[in-house]
Amino acid sequence: MGLKSFVEVLPDSHFPIENLPYGVFKPEPGSKARPGVAIGDYVLDLSVIASAGLFDGPILCNSDCFDQPNLNKFLELGRPAWKEARATLQKLLSPTEPALRDNASLRQKALVPVDKAQMLLPIAIGDYTDFFASMHHAKNCGTIFRGPQNPINPNWFHLPIAYHGRASSIVISGTDIVRPRGQSYPTGNSPPYFGPSQKLDFELEMAAIVGPGNELGKPVDVNEAADHIFGLVLMNDWSARDIQAWEYVPLGPFLGKSFGTTLSPWIVTLDALEPFACDGPKQDPHPLPYLAEKIHVNYDISLEVRISPTGEEHSHVVTRSNFKHLYWTVTQQLAHHTINGCNLRPGDLLGTGTISGPEPESYGCLLELAWNGQKPLSLGGTTRKFLEDGDEVIFTGCCKGNGYNVGFGTCSGKILPSPP
Amino acid sequence: MGLKSFVEVLPDSHFPIENLPYGVFKPEPGSKARPGVAIGDYVLDLSVIASAGLFDGPILCNSDCFDQPNLNKFLELGRPAWKEARATLQKLLSPTEPALRDNASLRQKALVPVDKAQMLLPIAIGDYTDFFASMHHAKNCGTIFRGPQNPINPNWFHLPIAYHGRASSIVISGTDIVRPRGQSYPTGNSPPYFGPSQKLDFELEMAAIVGPGNELGKPVDVNEAADHIFGLVLMNDWSARDIQAWEYVPLGPFLGKSFGTTLSPWIVTLDALEPFACDGPKQDPHPLPYLAEKIHVNYDISLEVRISPTGEEHSHVVTRSNFKHLYWTVTQQLAHHTINGCNLRPGDLLGTGTISGPEPESYGCLLELAWNGQKPLSLGGTTRKFLEDGDEVIFTGCCKGNGYNVGFGTCSGKILPSPP
Repeated sequence: MGLKSFVEVLPDSHFPIENLPYGVFKPEPGSKARPGVAIGDYVLDLSVIASAGLFDGPILCNSDCFDQPNLNKFLELGRPAWKEARATLQKLLSPTEPALRDNASLRQKALVPVDKAQMLLPIAIGDYTDFFASMHHAKNCGTIFRGPQNPINPNWFHLPIAYHGRASSIVISGTDIVRPRGQSYPTGNSPPYFGPSQKLDFELEMAAIVGPGNELGKPVDVNEAADHIFGLVLMNDWSARDIQAWEYVPLGPFLGKSFGTTLSPWIVTLDALEPFACDGPKQDPHPLPYLAEKIHVNYDISLEVRISPTGEEHSHVVTRSNFKHLYWTVTQQLAHHTINGCNLRPGDLLGTGTISGPEPESYGCLLELAWNGQKPLSLGGTTRKFLEDGDEVIFTGCCKGNGYNVGFGTCSGKILPSPP
Repeated sequence: MGLKSFVEVLPDSHFPIENLPYGVFKPEPGSKARPGVAIGDYVLDLSVIASAGLFDGPILCNSDCFDQPNLNKFLELGRPAWKEARATLQKLLSPTEPALRDNASLRQKALVPVDKAQMLLPIAIGDYTDFFASMHHAKNCGTIFRGPQNPINPNWFHLPIAYHGRASSIVISGTDIVRPRGQSYPTGNSPPYFGPSQKLDFELEMAAIVGPGNELGKPVDVNEAADHIFGLVLMNDWSARDIQAWEYVPLGPFLGKSFGTTLSPWIVTLDALEPFACDGPKQDPHPLPYLAEKIHVNYDISLEVRISPTGEEHSHVVTRSNFKHLYWTVTQQLAHHTINGCNLRPGDLLGTGTISGPEPESYGCLLELAWNGQKPLSLGGTTRKFLEDGDEVIFTGCCKGNGYNVGFGTCSGKILPSPP
């Protein structure tokens, strides 16, 4: 049975005292951005807790890491600071601790109803990398584009394939996404198509947030990689399949991706996810030594995607997947990323790539779910091959504990029409 | 005949009063980073000129853009501010203007001998994009890897192909580069090779520095793109060809590039380059309307690469190329980058890709010059297929005016061995 907090937390909440995910918010429109943690239906303002002197542990008592407009400074401090903050906050929120519970004016300042808070991107993202770590996704894409013979390239089983993504266009959940315009494949001898993307898709992903970085030229050992990861978020890597298909040979995806990427506001820490660790996938062939890890785990995180078409009252579940379906773990991804000496910095984002499971109901994007338009997906009274203007796409993610959840909340965005 | 400054400028200097390129430097090891412009063998400290009240134009008189550790704030101000700064500085340095010329203590503070200044990255780079804009380079790479039939992919002539690069590992000229380790192609049924790259290469590039950005969802018109470009630098996009060849299908280059990218310290403005504008390349097929520009120009910038092997006194010229060989102009690159709504931010970097000319002596990387190891390059008494440990690679770039140069200085880096 879980812990308890003096703040009421409903049984189906994603944010009990076992979770305490980190975000950045403004309590009122004009106020300064500051870090907070979610507890039940409230955001606990960490700048207020810090000014009240309640972070009294040895690392945080003299730090200004919570008097910042993003979490980067806290992330840089590393796991000892994160563990200290978690212990302090779990004690402060416990039913037996009077410091906050019995101080009405402090409670009033520190606990902001979540529906009043404006959530912002929690981190300043220096670089964003996107991996391609689900075997089912790699297999489905390969089958769709190259046929069922050898759908997965030979390199895929030896290294976590990735590309650099665009950091500037990463937005917080709730931000509208404008349908991109661009070129796609010509028909016959015509010039290429130019106009609004006709194959706009979501990609169900999660992303790891880097804590302490590494120096240029100094790789991170795979067995120390977890100390460089603060936590996970939900991520929608919106994709224009037609733009991508025409542009991506030979240098990879570019404008098919860079028009927008949506993050959920709450970073769930690896500490909170620890009870949900599960065996990592069996890997055959055995990874090269620099990728062979002593502790090889994934996390059991249920993921769900709903689409809410414009004007409809109900949203429709279009897929149910799980983080544990990833073939390459986030620690292997991080170790691979640095093996050439590449430096990571606090706040860098490592996307997993689309998380597809083995069954057709668990595929992580419309390209796979509607098989590149060949099997339109039923959405109540209507169907979808790809996204239409006005569609809102909503991700949720949650770990089910014994009597409690450790959840990620939602990651959502709505498609607006292309400019004329 | 050129202008004159009261500061002595030797005839072969890259930095006469017609140039005035911007950089960031520390006058002494412990001091704060600040912006400067190069004039002859000196750096003019713009923070000193600003505190002395000598930026007296309407835009800059109340700005703190030169009291910053990078140029981003100045870049954001846009072309009117850049023109004002250029006019102010050309006047201040002219032989007839006493304000600086006759103020010995100000001169002493403001003019720092360039060999005492420590040059730093001039900008905080949010995102770095690398294009593939030289037809000769595209053709040579295609021929080497896929043979002489259709070496250039069909998309190449319709759009400026590009990929997102890694911003964290961009370093200033003079920084050593550690040879990356990584995987490359397996032989037969063996596991992939793992170890130090055996095909380490330079890539002769230039890069445009973005000034004012654009909002997410709002493309930049190709005919307004020049107002979003502050200037150009030399760039060496170091590449591990063996790592790249194994990893790049299907998502493009990743670890084969992300171990380091070197920039020259001085940003030469488009205003200084204007006298060297030349006709842009004839483009067939005609570009789509969003890429068809009214003013279609390149710049006549002579480029040269030398290699200086360890322990040798002399460096050897290995290629001579020119910026004007680019097929896609930097304004077309920028317009394409934003056509899907992607937002650029001040300080973003747009690399041109390797600038190869038509003749074998003008190819922009060893992959082409030594034809993937088949035609080793003579370097005095020794030869090179790819770079060896201890090799220093030095780029220079220069526009030849009537009696003066507008030059870029050098962009250099030396290869250190891989860690054990």
